[in-house]
Amino acid sequence: MSEFLTLLPPTEALQRLLLALPDMPSLPELIETKCSLGRVVAEPVIAPHPLPAFPRSTVDGYAVRATDTYGASDNLPCYLKLAGEIPMGAEANFALTSSYCALIHTGGMLPSGADSVVMLEHTQHTHTDEIEILRSVAVGENILQVGEDVATGDEVIPAGMRIRPAEIGGLMALGLTKVAVVRKPRIGIISSGDEIVPPETPLQTGQVHDINTYTLSALIEDYGGVPVRYGIIPDQAVVLHTVSAQALLECDAVVITAGSSASTRDFTAQVIDAMGRPGVLVHGVNIRPGKPTILAVCNGKAVIGLPGNPVSALVVASLFVVPVVESLLRLRHSAGLNRKTLGPSTRARLAVNIPSQAGREDWIPVRLIETPTGITAEPLFGKSNLIFTLVRADGMIYIPPDITGITAGEIVEVISQG
Amino acid sequence: MSEFLTLLPPTEALQRLLLALPDMPSLPELIETKCSLGRVVAEPVIAPHPLPAFPRSTVDGYAVRATDTYGASDNLPCYLKLAGEIPMGAEANFALTSSYCALIHTGGMLPSGADSVVMLEHTQHTHTDEIEILRSVAVGENILQVGEDVATGDEVIPAGMRIRPAEIGGLMALGLTKVAVVRKPRIGIISSGDEIVPPETPLQTGQVHDINTYTLSALIEDYGGVPVRYGIIPDQAVVLHTVSAQALLECDAVVITAGSSASTRDFTAQVIDAMGRPGVLVHGVNIRPGKPTILAVCNGKAVIGLPGNPVSALVVASLFVVPVVESLLRLRHSAGLNRKTLGPSTRARLAVNIPSQAGREDWIPVRLIETPTGITAEPLFGKSNLIFTLVRADGMIYIPPDITGITAGEIVEVISQG
Repeated sequence: MSEFLTLLPPTEALQRLLLALPDMPSLPELIETKCSLGRVVAEPVIAPHPLPAFPRSTVDGYAVRATDTYGASDNLPCYLKLAGEIPMGAEANFALTSSYCALIHTGGMLPSGADSVVMLEHTQHTHTDEIEILRSVAVGENILQVGEDVATGDEVIPAGMRIRPAEIGGLMALGLTKVAVVRKPRIGIISSGDEIVPPETPLQTGQVHDINTYTLSALIEDYGGVPVRYGIIPDQAVVLHTVSAQALLECDAVVITAGSSASTRDFTAQVIDAMGRPGVLVHGVNIRPGKPTILAVCNGKAVIGLPGNPVSALVVASLFVVPVVESLLRLRHSAGLNRKTLGPSTRARLAVNIPSQAGREDWIPVRLIETPTGITAEPLFGKSNLIFTLVRADGMIYIPPDITGITAGEIVEVISQG
Repeated sequence: MSEFLTLLPPTEALQRLLLALPDMPSLPELIETKCSLGRVVAEPVIAPHPLPAFPRSTVDGYAVRATDTYGASDNLPCYLKLAGEIPMGAEANFALTSSYCALIHTGGMLPSGADSVVMLEHTQHTHTDEIEILRSVAVGENILQVGEDVATGDEVIPAGMRIRPAEIGGLMALGLTKVAVVRKPRIGIISSGDEIVPPETPLQTGQVHDINTYTLSALIEDYGGVPVRYGIIPDQAVVLHTVSAQALLECDAVVITAGSSASTRDFTAQVIDAMGRPGVLVHGVNIRPGKPTILAVCNGKAVIGLPGNPVSALVVASLFVVPVVESLLRLRHSAGLNRKTLGPSTRARLAVNIPSQAGREDWIPVRLIETPTGITAEPLFGKSNLIFTLVRADGMIYIPPDITGITAGEIVEVISQG
């Protein structure tokens, strides 16, 4: 119990804490998808229908039967009769027969009988009812097949993912206007110290304002928890015991910033140890700032004692309180990475060559994969209207206009999406 | 007006848009500091009093006059009479005279007459009223002077900074329980397309659900704006004109995701151009996805036309809508970097050597400075209880336990704080 006998490395200390926490899923909460940004998906999301739900054109052009265009070129065009125009948002009222074509817009539904689309720029409208086709197409060219983004029954979002704008888009695409998310964990915050007074109280000589309650609240809120503030208590073991016991009952975890003198730190550890089994697991971590950190599990809940000084408290909270919040949220890290904290320059090794046109900026969604030699970025080459390409992506890579591609094995910067 | 005549590079396109926006500060909003996470400070925050407000001990030990300890060592200790114990949160009821010392705890107020503190571990309590001092101290050693963190009148947070947990702590330390922040900009969102139906509406053949309204709302919300949804409108220029004009009146900027066919994109640009002066500035950006992007300023407000397909819309919104939101928030980027999007591995060149003790993990706050040769990380060596050290910091660097320091010029990873 006495502090600093063994100073554990921070990663080992955290592991000891997380391993001692029981694996208790909380009841999910059903909320509106449009209000779900930043929440964590509680149950796998299964596609109730395929996307697209009908064959769609990816370009403006003419829906055709590919066989009708074979051999067509600028020098030797072929001619197809115009059957009509496909309305947006509705089915064509005709089927396409051989030697006919139909005007179609991007996103329009392919008429039955058609199997491909010739781009507008490879055609000429010569007569009212006849179209000149200057390029041949293959079956499936310039169209999205039914289920090409997702098939019915696909797990489109696994449990434990944090919802970004892309996930909201994916859910809406499937008509899922509600989503089951993990309840926000409640984290009790107790500040102790005889010299501490609330920020709204004018200071007497020798007093300082409470900082930790508010920096910790903001940090917990930012990572998806609900801070529950128990105020400032004096440096007395019996008061600390009473307030901590109440917080432990009412919250999913408790954070105590102890008075900073050695004697206060000592009784804080004793009070925490008496709150429940197994009690204090770590007392003293080999880190600066933050050496006098206390990590405990009491009756299945994490209790963390932070140093009283505000900088240490905030740094140590990022290292130990944030992972507890994320563990309570049952957050699943993708490739060992937390998508929330993916920054503008998370680096990864590119898995394959990516060509790019000089002069144009390219943004390509990638998935990150942990390998024994580091993190690999695997491009998700989807047709650009597949929202679930972004849902599957951990981030984007950027190819600047002045280069013509990136070679496999190069280190790329992965930028978080949204 | 016709699209794709000139494809601008994305950075040039953005610059053209931002330069055409008038520089109109909005009225600030006074809110509770504890609810200000993520908001942007509207006016410089000035310290109303110094921090610390009184001289404080940074250790547990004995307050002394440094001259009384000169020459003291393990072999040749000096002896000081115990004047008493300094209570936490109050002034001592005695002044320290020569050859006396007083027990003081970390954070305690130095008694008048004392000028330094000897750490507890360098003392022995031999008799009831006498302390053995085993180490000499210099004047000022182990204490924080009045105003060492901030002085009265210091600008502690410049206008334009986004409030992180550290800023909340700094404000609370100064007793500032309210803060003036920039009003959240309202961004109107209009989706168009005959094939688009709301997510809650079951699909007819050929229809798809509205995705863009919700991905854009989430993105705007995430960056501190208020999305104002104008729903889905059919591909008709006159309806688009009416709804856009209303949105322009009611909001600070307007985003329109156009139907994706070429004809719809064309009339969208015409409608936007007619909304106000100077009208469309950019039509077509050299980027994939996102080529058909429209950037305009109408009556002093940004109007952005995004491609209809959801992936393009979300990628392009990150590049053009987010900067507009940040410009309306009058967000100031630190060293050209946005603190919000500082990630776990923003890299910078270390400005000076940092020693570190082997076996211990060190976390050091740094400021990022833009230099002609790249971004430099300058450590903020503050005593660890100075909250404004974290407020001044753009992030932290981490020294792992297995190395004994980092040399100036090395590339370090800068991790965002909170």
